[in-house]
Parts: sequence; C-alpha cells; structure tokens
Amino acid sequence: MRIDIITVLPEMIEGALNCSILKRAQEKGLVQFGLHNLRDYTLDKHRRVDDYPFGGEAGMVLQIEPIDRCITHLKSLRDYDEVIFTTPDGEKFTQKVANELSLKENFIILCGHYKGVDYRVREHLVTREISIGDFVLTGGELAAAMIADAVVRVIPGAIGDEQSALSDSFQDNLLAPPVYTRPAEYKGWRVPDILLSGHERKIAEWRLEQAQERTRRLRPDLLDSTFGTLPHQSS
Amino acid sequence: MRIDIITVLPEMIEGALNCSILKRAQEKGLVQFGLHNLRDYTLDKHRRVDDYPFGGEAGMVLQIEPIDRCITHLKSLRDYDEVIFTTPDGEKFTQKVANELSLKENFIILCGHYKGVDYRVREHLVTREISIGDFVLTGGELAAAMIADAVVRVIPGAIGDEQSALSDSFQDNLLAPPVYTRPAEYKGWRVPDILLSGHERKIAEWRLEQAQERTRRLRPDLLDSTFGTLPHQSS
Repeated sequence: MRIDIITVLPEMIEGALNCSILKRAQEKGLVQFGLHNLRDYTLDKHRRVDDYPFGGEAGMVLQIEPIDRCITHLKSLRDYDEVIFTTPDGEKFTQKVANELSLKENFIILCGHYKGVDYRVREHLVTREISIGDFVLTGGELAAAMIADAVVRVIPGAIGDEQSALSDSFQDNLLAPPVYTRPAEYKGWRVPDILLSGHERKIAEWRLEQAQERTRRLRPDLLDSTFGTLPHQSS
Repeated sequence: MRIDIITVLPEMIEGALNCSILKRAQEKGLVQFGLHNLRDYTLDKHRRVDDYPFGGEAGMVLQIEPIDRCITHLKSLRDYDEVIFTTPDGEKFTQKVANELSLKENFIILCGHYKGVDYRVREHLVTREISIGDFVLTGGELAAAMIADAVVRVIPGAIGDEQSALSDSFQDNLLAPPVYTRPAEYKGWRVPDILLSGHERKIAEWRLEQAQERTRRLRPDLLDSTFGTLPHQSS
C-alpha cells in the first residue's frame, strides 16, 4: 500500500509517520508514505498557496491550482483508489472505514488548512471526504496521520501479534475489557483475583462479561450497530 | 494554560506541537506544553514501562508505577484541573469539550499505548477519559496532539483573526458554507456569481442558506443537538 499526503505542513506529521508501528510497517514493506509539500507545486514566486476568500469572509483558503498540479503529478506516477480530503463535514471515520481503506492499493490524503480549500477541489478532484470528529483543527494533518495509523495497523503483519488487533475495541462491536499487569498489588489496589487464578475458561468468560457490561453502560449504541469485521481476519 | 503530555513516544508528536498555530500560541505565552517520556519515570534499569497482561491476553500493558510516579511529580509542581486519558471507550471529544477545556488552567494528557494501561490507572489516577472516535490507534499520542490543537486554537489570540474560529463548523451548530478563492475560473470551473457580486447582504444570506442546506443534507443530527457556544465569544 502507498499513502500520499499533501500538506502545507509536512513537518507537523513527519515524526508521527516515522516512528513506532508506522516506521516498522514501512521497513517491512507493508506501506510506503509520500509526504508532499503543497508549496512545491505552486507557480507563485513566493510559494504562496492560499489567498483571501471571495465574498470577504475571514480566514485564508487553499487555492485549487497547486492542489490540482500536485494530484495530477501523483496520478501520472501511479493509479489511486481514492483522493481523500479531511474535513469536519465528511463521512465519519470509524474502524469500519479504517478496515476498508486497509484493502486499498494507493490513496492520497489532502490536508485542508487555514479556512479550508477552494470548494472546486472538493467538487472535482476529491473522491471521498472523511471527518475525524465533530471538532475543528488547525489543519487536516493530524487527521491524516491518524487515518494512516488506524489503517496501517490493521494490515496483517503491521503489529507484532496479529491477535492483538483482533481483540481491540470495536472489532467485535464491544469495548475492550479492563487489562492489568504487574505488580498484582500497588498501593493497596489489587488486580481482580480471577486474572491471577490461571483458570483460562473462567478468565475468558470474565473478559466477555466485562466487555459486554462496559459496552452496555458506556456505549449501548455499539450493540445495535454493525462495525464490520476486520477484513483480513480470515486470511 | 499548561498542557502536560505523558507518552512513551514523545518524538511522535513533538513536531505537531511545535509548528504552526501551536508554535505561535507558545511564543505568545498563551500555552505551555510539557512533553514527558514515561521511561524517565521508571525504576527499571532497562527503562521498561510495559509488561504482559495478567490472565494471558495478547499485547502489552503500560504499568501503573511509572505513570503514578510521573503524575505525582507533575502534581508536586502545580495543580491540575484534569488528568485526561485518551481511550476509545471514553467520552466523545467534540467542539463543546474543546471549548470547555480551553477554559482550564492546567491539564495532563496521558497517552495509552500498546494494549492499554493497567486499569488501576484509570480507576485511581485519571479524572476524565476522552475518545477521539470509534477507531483504534497505535497509541494516544495523535489523539493528545489533536486535543491540544482543537483546544488551543479557540483560546483568544491563538489564531490571527478571531472571527475565523467563530465561523468554523460546529460553533453555531451548522457546517461551514463552501469557500472559494482566486482564480474565479479554473479549467472552466467557476466560482458562484453571487460571491463575485460585492453585495454583502446577499452574500451573507447565500452563506447561511448553504450552511443550512449542507447541514440538513449531511448532518441533520447537528440541528437537533446543542454543541455549546465558544466560551470566549463574549469576551
């Protein structure tokens, strides 16, 4: 898989894409990242890529021309399944979307910045609009890094123990049960006895009960919804 | 305001906290960030901060001891309004939560990593659990950076033109209307004539209609909900 990210602030997410699981996934050849500075694609001599909005609103707007030039350049090198734009009014990003994107070959993420992008970009160049949540960020950079992280970690082999992703929250429509590690007692706070019992079946039952109870209490909506299963689960 | 972030991967978000609006907000004295490597707070000679979960599940769990030592150290230096833990089963992060957090003096964000943190941390040390969305990440680092970004940008003075945050999506329960900038025509795609008309009142009406129409079509739920207003709006 290849993920190309177009941004005015590559330094904002360079670190995130090059450490931990995303670093190892690149080393293993599971994913390639391309980080493209939008300013490299403008013809403006001051490398400016934004301008005032028509109609006099506050804020600055990213221009269509450098974005079009960058996307056109990338598309001349390979085919892309999607050109994703991160925006608070897009389709909500969920584990189901992450699972689905993990099956793509190549996609582009265009990061909005300032007040937004010229709307013609969204009408003519973007194929999919994704929102991370109901809040506004400085730009789409952190959203893009988050999408990359959530997508790449479900590619088989990306995390050390594949089982670990299967038991994550949401993959089975349940929140994860509580986890504990050493020491068994800390400042008088003890790990539940059942987890120290060594009784595998009872521990599995306890975990399922805890997951169900937590989901009913905290996120009853999950029990009614279909989050989809991990696409690679049967492979 | 001061935001302290506790993480095993400071390098993952160092870049994000030190560029663009977050950098300028620090330079203006509006916010201070403290980025704390959890490994600096373990007594383990190999600087290990995780261990296998009790009960034999897959994945690794962050231990309570270094987390407790780090939080205790920070609390010895100043008071904190909240110790926030980012987890997919927490309270959903929205613009309303961002607005509310922007009024705090100091808070800590603890980033989960690997399979999670020892649940006793959540029971005894954390005061608030926040979820960025229904998906699983490598760790809470990107979520923490996102919270910092969303919170800091609504502090008055953090973005150049304060009006710009007021007209963001969600601040008035409406999605933002389309924006356009130069050129007025690109590859035959034209900016709506109304925005070039210079007629301020008609432009304002058009924007409101567009915002309402987009919200009804894409996010009718917003029209029924209360997102809260920007806390600094009247100041």
